[in-house]
Amino acid sequence: MAGRLLGLGVGPGDPELITVKALRLLQSAPVVAYFVAKAKANAGQGGNAYGVIEGYLLDGQQRLPLVYPVTTEKLAPPLSYETVIADFYDTAAAQVADHLDAGRDVAVICEGDPFFYGSYMYLHDRLAERYEAQVVPGVCSMLGGVAMLGLPLVYRNQTLTVLSGVLSAEELKARLASADAAVVMKLGRNFEKVRQVLRDLGLDQRARYIERATMDNQRIVALDAVEPMASPYFSLVVVPGVKWKG
Amino acid sequence: MAGRLLGLGVGPGDPELITVKALRLLQSAPVVAYFVAKAKANAGQGGNAYGVIEGYLLDGQQRLPLVYPVTTEKLAPPLSYETVIADFYDTAAAQVADHLDAGRDVAVICEGDPFFYGSYMYLHDRLAERYEAQVVPGVCSMLGGVAMLGLPLVYRNQTLTVLSGVLSAEELKARLASADAAVVMKLGRNFEKVRQVLRDLGLDQRARYIERATMDNQRIVALDAVEPMASPYFSLVVVPGVKWKG
Repeated sequence: MAGRLLGLGVGPGDPELITVKALRLLQSAPVVAYFVAKAKANAGQGGNAYGVIEGYLLDGQQRLPLVYPVTTEKLAPPLSYETVIADFYDTAAAQVADHLDAGRDVAVICEGDPFFYGSYMYLHDRLAERYEAQVVPGVCSMLGGVAMLGLPLVYRNQTLTVLSGVLSAEELKARLASADAAVVMKLGRNFEKVRQVLRDLGLDQRARYIERATMDNQRIVALDAVEPMASPYFSLVVVPGVKWKG
Repeated sequence: MAGRLLGLGVGPGDPELITVKALRLLQSAPVVAYFVAKAKANAGQGGNAYGVIEGYLLDGQQRLPLVYPVTTEKLAPPLSYETVIADFYDTAAAQVADHLDAGRDVAVICEGDPFFYGSYMYLHDRLAERYEAQVVPGVCSMLGGVAMLGLPLVYRNQTLTVLSGVLSAEELKARLASADAAVVMKLGRNFEKVRQVLRDLGLDQRARYIERATMDNQRIVALDAVEPMASPYFSLVVVPGVKWKG
């Protein structure tokens, strides 16, 4: 009998923010797979999700690192990010499938939630029709961030818009202008563009900023004080909904 | 010394989807507060969040039910929902504050996540400036739903829009038309309006429907087969992002 594919959300960073269920399934799996950047893998490290669960692993659990071949979306032709990354996910899915075919459950750990911008989705899309798959939802980084900021996010019937900082200034502006509440993810080198859009819309006083929410090295900085070139990928801008007295 | 206000997300329904941290803090608190509808309270029951954590409570933990005075937003003048509910939250905050003043930590349990459409927000807004507050994020019902549906929600740089079914058909249509991916919450008697909007936009084949995600009585029904008058408040419509091969 084939093993099960387990897509486990491990939460935003604090190891205690894993769910009881993800922890139980994690410790039950003979193989634990995780995505990791090449530079980290070369330095003998796991990825962010691995750091979250490392302390929970038991003796005898096999590690299966899935090492990203590229760290930038800008590649010289004839290479393209889309092709390289699609090939990589094909290979990663085959590595996982080898274990499933041998009857071993594989826990794929995911920072935050598996289906909320998670790399696990690309394995799921390749494998879930052929193998039994179980997905355990997790606390996403967005909600980790608002909890650490102490900011209620959406009241009552407010609309929430979740955006990637990669979008153009024009698209960010249009979408933020019509949002009751918003979260902008994937900041990094997109930070300055996002801040300028917030200023143009007069939202910069309402917006709040956090880096690496719930992790040991979490930082909360005033939006005006953020050093744009130092903003990490794992940072968030939150524009909370206007308080409803309720 | 005053007690601490603990806002604990307990997840979408499956008791195992509570985080290790929320469980630890829940069991450490001498007082456990929860919102509950009057009809349930009169029948001797707790609310949904209480049902999630009931099995985790320890001997000697005091229960503090916060009983909603109304169950509908439509009240005969001179009453208004806004006034009645604001008074209720004032009273609930005072009940919690009595315990905090006496030096007892109060764990306020929240279905899903405390800051994602949670009633806890109204206590937080009233108490967090006066008392030490700690918020533990939780798995929100939206992500519980997509996990159970097996539907990756947002790929790469897609935008996610989260909507309340209470909004008008016009507003729902405008926001859904521009969304890469969307979740509509608070369905109940708003279901038929939402389904018609999805049909008008040609999104009804992509949309999926789930009731009481991760709870014992979870139901997944084809959108076309939903009996509108039977759709519970705890149901979701999910319009997943278009798959990216990645």
